[in-house]
Amino acid sequence: MPNTTDHAPLFDRIAIIGVGLIGSSIARVARERQLARHIVACDSDEVVRKRVVELDIADEVNGDAAQACRDCDFVVLCAPVGVNGAIAAAVAPVLKPGAIVSDVGSVKQAVVDAVAPHIPKGVHFVPAHPVAGTEYSGPDAGFATLFINRWCILTPPEGEDEAAIDKVRRFWEACGANVEVMSPLHHDLVLAITSHVPHLIAYNIVRTADDLESVTQSEVIKFSAGGFRDFTRIAASDPTMWRDVFLNNKQAVLEMLGRFQEDLASLQRMIRWDDGQGLFDLFTRTRAIRRSIIAQGQETNAADFGRGSAPPPKS
Amino acid sequence: MPNTTDHAPLFDRIAIIGVGLIGSSIARVARERQLARHIVACDSDEVVRKRVVELDIADEVNGDAAQACRDCDFVVLCAPVGVNGAIAAAVAPVLKPGAIVSDVGSVKQAVVDAVAPHIPKGVHFVPAHPVAGTEYSGPDAGFATLFINRWCILTPPEGEDEAAIDKVRRFWEACGANVEVMSPLHHDLVLAITSHVPHLIAYNIVRTADDLESVTQSEVIKFSAGGFRDFTRIAASDPTMWRDVFLNNKQAVLEMLGRFQEDLASLQRMIRWDDGQGLFDLFTRTRAIRRSIIAQGQETNAADFGRGSAPPPKS
Repeated sequence: MPNTTDHAPLFDRIAIIGVGLIGSSIARVARERQLARHIVACDSDEVVRKRVVELDIADEVNGDAAQACRDCDFVVLCAPVGVNGAIAAAVAPVLKPGAIVSDVGSVKQAVVDAVAPHIPKGVHFVPAHPVAGTEYSGPDAGFATLFINRWCILTPPEGEDEAAIDKVRRFWEACGANVEVMSPLHHDLVLAITSHVPHLIAYNIVRTADDLESVTQSEVIKFSAGGFRDFTRIAASDPTMWRDVFLNNKQAVLEMLGRFQEDLASLQRMIRWDDGQGLFDLFTRTRAIRRSIIAQGQETNAADFGRGSAPPPKS
Repeated sequence: MPNTTDHAPLFDRIAIIGVGLIGSSIARVARERQLARHIVACDSDEVVRKRVVELDIADEVNGDAAQACRDCDFVVLCAPVGVNGAIAAAVAPVLKPGAIVSDVGSVKQAVVDAVAPHIPKGVHFVPAHPVAGTEYSGPDAGFATLFINRWCILTPPEGEDEAAIDKVRRFWEACGANVEVMSPLHHDLVLAITSHVPHLIAYNIVRTADDLESVTQSEVIKFSAGGFRDFTRIAASDPTMWRDVFLNNKQAVLEMLGRFQEDLASLQRMIRWDDGQGLFDLFTRTRAIRRSIIAQGQETNAADFGRGSAPPPKS
C-alpha cells in the first residue's frame, strides 16, 4: 500500500452515500489513511446514521444525499444497486464542476445505464467495484483493512477523463486494493460466474435442505460439517443487496446459470451410469484452480479455512 | 472429552486399514489418548507406509491387511468406500472371536451390503461415519483434534451386540466426537444433502468456470473473493474418495440433486420475471440456518470464516 499520509489528501471532501459494510469500510480507511480532508457519511436510515455518529467514522453525518454531496469532489454511491439511479437524480443538481462520481456496485452495466444520464456536463463518472466483503452487513460490519490485496474493477465510460480515472485508481490503491479496468458488460460476465451464480446456488442449496421432509432441519445443522456449512456463509449475505444484484445482472446470470445446469446434468448422468472415470477426472481437474487461487493470495491455504483446530498443511 | 487416560485402554490392538486423513487422525488420537495398547497401521501404498513410519504415528506398519488384523480386537476400515468389501473378504479369515469391525465411510448402506456378508459369526460389525475432514488428504493431513465437537454416526445392523456398539461409541467419544445412531439408509439421505450434493455442486461450479470462453481462468482466479473461492475448498477434496461416494450413494444423491435442480429452476424463473419480493424472501430465510449452525458450534462466527484480517462481528 503506497504511503499516502506524507502527501496532501487525494480529495478535499468525500461523500459516502449508504453506510453499510462497504461504505463504512471506505469511511474508516479514508480517515485512517487521510485520503480526504472531510468525510461526509449519508444514509437514509436514521438508525444507521445514529450508529455512524457513535462509531465516529465520519466528520459529518447527513440524511439527505443532495446536502451531503454539496461541495464534494468525490461522491461514492454505496447503496444497493437498485437505488443508484434515484440517488444520482437527487444529487445531480448540486454536483460541483470537476467532481467525480463513483460507486461500489456489484453490477456495472445497469448502474451505468441508471446513473450516467443524470451526470451533469463537467462532472466525471468512474464506476467501481471493489471485489471484497463478508457475510455481515451494516456500519458495524466494516473495517479499514477490508480492501487489502483485493481487486477493485473500474468500468469508466469511453472517453472519460484520464485524470479522473487515475484519481479513482489511486484512491483504491491507497485503500490497499489492486485495480483493473474493463468494460461494464465484461465485468458483469466475470462477476456472474465468480460471485453472482455462486451466491445463487448457495442460497438455493440452503433452501433445498430447509424444505426436506425426510431429513430434519436439526439433522442438517448437526451434520453440516460434511460440506454444507461452507455454503451457508455466502447464503447469509444481505438480502436487499443480492435481490438487486440478480435483478440488475439478469442476462449474464441466466447465461452462466444455464451453463452450470447443463454441466450439472452431465454430472448427474455420470452418477446414474456409474461413470467412475469421468467423475475422477473431473474431481482431479478442479483441484488446480484452488491451488492457483491460494498462490495468488486470494485465499488461505489453512485446512478448513483455518476455522478450527486444524494445523496448517505440512507440504 | 472424557479423560480416558486414567483407565485401561478401550482396546488391546487396533488395526487401521488405510492411513489417509481420517485413518492417520485416528492413529494420532488413539495414541495421544491411549485408546489401545498397540496400534497397527496398514496401507497398500508403499509411499504411505514409509511416511507413516517417519511420522511415527503407529506401533506397527504393515502392507497386508490380513496380517495387520491378526489378533486385533478393533479393526477400522479407512480406505475409500469402494474397496471396503474386498478388504473385508481378505481379513475375514483372521478376525478373532469377539473382535469389532468398523469403518469411517461417508456412505453406509453400500458399505453394509459389501462388508456384512464377510463378517464371521462371533465378530461384531458396527459401521461408523465421523462427519469431519478437511480438503487435504494423506497421512500428513491428519491431526489428533480433527474429531473434537464433530458428530460421529453409527449405523449398527439390527440385533448387533449392545456392548460392542457401546464400545465403539466410547471410542469416538474419547476422540472428542458426539455420537448418534441411525439406520444406514437414513444416514445416506442426511449425508446426501449435508455433504454429497454440496461437494457435487462445488465441483460443478469450478468446472463451469474453468470451461468458459468469455471469461478467462486468470479472471476467475483474480476475482474469486466475490464468493467463488468458498466453493473451491471442498472442490479440492480427494478425487478417489468422492468418486466412490457418488457411485455408492447413487439413489439418495440423485433424489437430492433432483430437488436442488427444481429449486434452482424456480429461482431462475424469479430472476427472469423480476420477482424481487420472491428473491428477497428466500434470501432472508436462508440466514437463519447459518445462525443455528454457528450457535450449535459446527461453524465459526468470524467474518469470512476468520480467513483474513476481518475482526470478529461486534453484535
